[in-house]
Amino acid sequence: MAATTMKASFPLLMLLGIVFLASECVSSDPENPFIFESNNFQTLFENDNGHIHLLQKFDERSKILENLQNYRLLEYKSKPRTIFLPQQTDADFILVVLSGKAILTVLKPNDRNSFNLERGDTIKLPAGTIAYLVNRDDNEDLRVLDLALPVNRPGQLQSFLLSGSQNQQSILSGFSKNILEASFNTGYEEIEKVLLEEHDKETQHRRSLRDKREHSQEEDVIVKLSTGQIEELSKNAKSSSKKSVSSESEPFNLRSRSPIYSNKFGRFFEITPEKNPQLQDLNVFVSSVEIKEGSLLLPHYNSRAIVIVAVNDGNGDFELVGQRNENQQGQRKEDDEEEEQGEEDINKQVKNYKAKLSRGDVFVIPAGYPVAIKASSNLDLLGFGINAKNNQRNFLAGEEDNVVIQIHQPVKELVFPGSAQEVDRLLENQKQSHFTNAQPQHKERGSRETRDPLYSILDAF
Amino acid sequence: MAATTMKASFPLLMLLGIVFLASECVSSDPENPFIFESNNFQTLFENDNGHIHLLQKFDERSKILENLQNYRLLEYKSKPRTIFLPQQTDADFILVVLSGKAILTVLKPNDRNSFNLERGDTIKLPAGTIAYLVNRDDNEDLRVLDLALPVNRPGQLQSFLLSGSQNQQSILSGFSKNILEASFNTGYEEIEKVLLEEHDKETQHRRSLRDKREHSQEEDVIVKLSTGQIEELSKNAKSSSKKSVSSESEPFNLRSRSPIYSNKFGRFFEITPEKNPQLQDLNVFVSSVEIKEGSLLLPHYNSRAIVIVAVNDGNGDFELVGQRNENQQGQRKEDDEEEEQGEEDINKQVKNYKAKLSRGDVFVIPAGYPVAIKASSNLDLLGFGINAKNNQRNFLAGEEDNVVIQIHQPVKELVFPGSAQEVDRLLENQKQSHFTNAQPQHKERGSRETRDPLYSILDAF
Amino acid sequence: MAATTMKASFPLLMLLGIVFLASECVSSDPENPFIFESNNFQTLFENDNGHIHLLQKFDERSKILENLQNYRLLEYKSKPRTIFLPQQTDADFILVVLSGKAILTVLKPNDRNSFNLERGDTIKLPAGTIAYLVNRDDNEDLRVLDLALPVNRPGQLQSFLLSGSQNQQSILSGFSKNILEASFNTGYEEIEKVLLEEHDKETQHRRSLRDKREHSQEEDVIVKLSTGQIEELSKNAKSSSKKSVSSESEPFNLRSRSPIYSNKFGRFFEITPEKNPQLQDLNVFVSSVEIKEGSLLLPHYNSRAIVIVAVNDGNGDFELVGQRNENQQGQRKEDDEEEEQGEEDINKQVKNYKAKLSRGDVFVIPAGYPVAIKASSNLDLLGFGINAKNNQRNFLAGEEDNVVIQIHQPVKELVFPGSAQEVDRLLENQKQSHFTNAQPQHKERGSRETRDPLYSILDAF
Repeated sequence: MAATTMKASFPLLMLLGIVFLASECVSSDPENPFIFESNNFQTLFENDNGHIHLLQKFDERSKILENLQNYRLLEYKSKPRTIFLPQQTDADFILVVLSGKAILTVLKPNDRNSFNLERGDTIKLPAGTIAYLVNRDDNEDLRVLDLALPVNRPGQLQSFLLSGSQNQQSILSGFSKNILEASFNTGYEEIEKVLLEEHDKETQHRRSLRDKREHSQEEDVIVKLSTGQIEELSKNAKSSSKKSVSSESEPFNLRSRSPIYSNKFGRFFEITPEKNPQLQDLNVFVSSVEIKEGSLLLPHYNSRAIVIVAVNDGNGDFELVGQRNENQQGQRKEDDEEEEQGEEDINKQVKNYKAKLSRGDVFVIPAGYPVAIKASSNLDLLGFGINAKNNQRNFLAGEEDNVVIQIHQPVKELVFPGSAQEVDRLLENQKQSHFTNAQPQHKERGSRETRDPLYSILDAF
Repeated sequence: MAATTMKASFPLLMLLGIVFLASECVSSDPENPFIFESNNFQTLFENDNGHIHLLQKFDERSKILENLQNYRLLEYKSKPRTIFLPQQTDADFILVVLSGKAILTVLKPNDRNSFNLERGDTIKLPAGTIAYLVNRDDNEDLRVLDLALPVNRPGQLQSFLLSGSQNQQSILSGFSKNILEASFNTGYEEIEKVLLEEHDKETQHRRSLRDKREHSQEEDVIVKLSTGQIEELSKNAKSSSKKSVSSESEPFNLRSRSPIYSNKFGRFFEITPEKNPQLQDLNVFVSSVEIKEGSLLLPHYNSRAIVIVAVNDGNGDFELVGQRNENQQGQRKEDDEEEEQGEEDINKQVKNYKAKLSRGDVFVIPAGYPVAIKASSNLDLLGFGINAKNNQRNFLAGEEDNVVIQIHQPVKELVFPGSAQEVDRLLENQKQSHFTNAQPQHKERGSRETRDPLYSILDAF
Repeated sequence: MAATTMKASFPLLMLLGIVFLASECVSSDPENPFIFESNNFQTLFENDNGHIHLLQKFDERSKILENLQNYRLLEYKSKPRTIFLPQQTDADFILVVLSGKAILTVLKPNDRNSFNLERGDTIKLPAGTIAYLVNRDDNEDLRVLDLALPVNRPGQLQSFLLSGSQNQQSILSGFSKNILEASFNTGYEEIEKVLLEEHDKETQHRRSLRDKREHSQEEDVIVKLSTGQIEELSKNAKSSSKKSVSSESEPFNLRSRSPIYSNKFGRFFEITPEKNPQLQDLNVFVSSVEIKEGSLLLPHYNSRAIVIVAVNDGNGDFELVGQRNENQQGQRKEDDEEEEQGEEDINKQVKNYKAKLSRGDVFVIPAGYPVAIKASSNLDLLGFGINAKNNQRNFLAGEEDNVVIQIHQPVKELVFPGSAQEVDRLLENQKQSHFTNAQPQHKERGSRETRDPLYSILDAF
């Protein structure tokens, strides 16, 4: 909020502004269960070549997010010319490339498919799929966001690696020697030498045994690749179709269809379960939203979807309107006071949940909660909508898709303090739809002064 | 039970009868988790123009109703010529008009639809739909029953109002001033004057500021309408189709199809998910049952549906057959005594859960539990069946749909103490199906005396 | 494991072997939440004619099996020429005949169907269906396995009997006298005499009253039948179609289709929801697996199904590969130590969950967990796969359906210590697919000695 008003660069104002921002961040966080920052991620794996981060469980943060208990968010990042070694996880994944260039290989019992992926490419990896992911670029990092839906236990993920590593054993090493000998029809020493890591011996010893191999990081999950290896993995790799988003198993790009909302202030792309068969049984939509610097995504709400949004790039402000006593109902039994169920209980005060947004932040928009998002620099958002089927986005301002305009004239007078004519005149003042300028174009100076203490300070200079 | 035997109007018997009834009501309640009475409703809103009541959570009452944890029941009532102002809730609704005449307006982003509703008209309101409901009648109260399926949190509802009121703020007032200014492209003073209530000032002051408006109740959720306003809202309002129940979004009437069971003792109407697309994804049936005074809905059970029934009108008796130790299995771990898993544990005694029914009561019939309902005055019931798809109603008495009759002759002899011929003769004694006279037509005097203490008293006179 | 190496029958070795086996069984059990033995079953009913056993709740055993909370396993056994009297349960059932010959009668409101069932015949009994099951054979016991999916409460079953018995009252006796009189249009004495048991009087008295009937066991749930009665019940009984498995309501045989995997070491039959409409809404597959004595079902995992397997016959060994810290993630909050989220936390060690299998044991294979099963005598397994739709079985060894073979050559070098050529040569050593000999055919003597202490002892003789 303050950020967009600080065009005048007086040092003192800057200082004040920063203090203001800092205090706002600190104060808004503990009581805003809808925003997740970098410290809400846990590192599952990290080495010089990249990392995998897992966002804390949504329902652990707040009971308000209880219906997200079987959804987890993973962020993956790797350096140029590396590979995330073959593994499978007991969860369905929706994988979206945030930036960089990848080759994703997906194994089947009698087949394999490789895909060239770029920014916005999206694919469902069904639970149990063995896959490996290459950063094929020479310079750019690869960043991937995954929505995971575990199949064994609600909200619990478990990955199985074919390779052993310093940190994690290969799944093959979990079988007893005689099962392995019968399975591979070979003596155990041979199996151990060719397929397994020797975890019983010390690291030092193991290293010396493997002098033949160049990379010591190959003991890890994300390892370097040579140019030749990348070339070999690139063979037969298909690119995501730019025309269609309707394949059962091939990647699709979020921008392959026209944006559902678009003007000079921003663009909103969305692939729904109705448009893509991969999203149907998971009942999830995936959206990509660009808000230009100094622009605003107008206040709106999702009719039935709960949306998990990650900030891919840029900075901005997020405002969500909820209710102050939203979980009193659930707590009533703990209060043990039946009298409290009376009139006062429904004195519902709306509550503004606000947060500064920057790259890597995640926020959740519950169904029905109005939200508005302002970009202080070009803002790039990626959203996963849970319970997506038949979701409708209802706007509360702007020319199109504005449900407020639809109210009957006599009802407008009952709803709002102004007359129906006054209300209509005011609503028509916004000629834009969906996105607009975050600075009102027609506001009078007077009203500004009364509401922002920074302005008085600014005026003093 | 006693009520139907009290045809002889001796004052003493009346007195005894009333005492008997009273003691039965008090004693049956605490141990009958399937019946809900008026004190199990909580008032969400109430003013001179009407109220909204919410039934307590089913699973809060008893673990036996655990599978109803995401279903809530709402009762709405309003005076003639009033409107329930525009709002949206984070739950799917199935709305049924119990009595009165309504206009329901449903808003969409670029459209609106209004419907004239009467008794039995039913419509699904998807979560997040902004709607307003008018009582268009000059004399009759409007009464509506809603089954709600929340989308954000199991069993938790949250409503969002466009209008501010004494008790609840408008959702627009939840956004910060600069978001509102940019959204409406207007200065905040104008927005405040035309769209928002001023909650910071005192009520007294606020009232004086709004002298221009006639109704002080317009600060509330249910407010009065003038005849002219109702006329304007009636324009273009469609009526529910009396012929078809297959529309995706228009209301249908529960009685638009022939009753599935009907005779001179009662009628049973039912709209299933198979018959109506609006009920398909919620997997709910809606039924309307009329039992004439002195008649009985024969013992039967639902094969897989759990049915929530509200008494719309009349009085009667409800008997449900369950098992005494039904939740011992779940408690076994707490007992810490493995030995208790033995033979005695399965000494299952059936249990008769009975309750007196009167207007406004709600009861639940679990799947598989046999139930019978007797009307002491014309009884009008409205039912919502959860898990409705492929539900079958199996009767245990009567001519048609009676599963007992289907048992092979030699098995009948093993099941029942009588011979197969005796069993068949007894079963054929009931010529009616589904509904019958609550007083047996062929019973011998002798058997009556032995089982009802009231009869001996009666004989004394 | 030891069992298959004990071909030489030296007494001392036998003794050692038995001690070895015994200690293994005792030690593996408490920390293996995936295996259930006879003491994990609870007796619901038992008399001279048979019994019904219910396996403990899966999620009671371990939180790892949380997603099985609404699945229960029932085992039913009856003597030749007996009947399990009519009853209905508040759960959907998938019923499979393990051995013996049955007549199953299913009642509908205006119809009944009887089916002759044999080993491998499978049918879905929807919740609330009244059914009775006859052992029609003169000599062989009837053994049936049921997967139950309760509809009223998660994991809780409740059965309703039409007949009264010593242990359990008939559901009709749960209604009050006046409801029964009106329902059957008959005096209560007649109803009591023909339809109800008199539970208020003493057993002694009751017995004397029923001198007319031959069998005192008819007070129980499983009772004897005469040859004449069986003949009458056999009339019009249909047999399961051997050609088609696509009926909506008729039984199908697990072996009516070709096995999906088959060689001289074993056969694997599977009916999936895609193949049979009865399994579609329950989303369950049913499989029947035969592993020949001395053979091995090769290491593989199910991509998304959680499989509940019962040992119908034979003995063997089961190895499941999981991870040691699999539920630390969930427990992290209880630890109250944020620092523990670091690097060490992902030092995941694979864990071998092993168990001896014998008739009547049940084990669970979570999705994604690799499993191998070895038969020490002909092993016959019956599996129910939960979350079956689109499940894929990925093998880790063998010629066909082996996902490891699909890995790109350069990636193989990164995954395994050996070169790609070495890995391929090793993988190609196993010419069999799916099933193989549990004794490797080409192993060198040397490697054997180093890994099994029994061999050194054996050599000493």
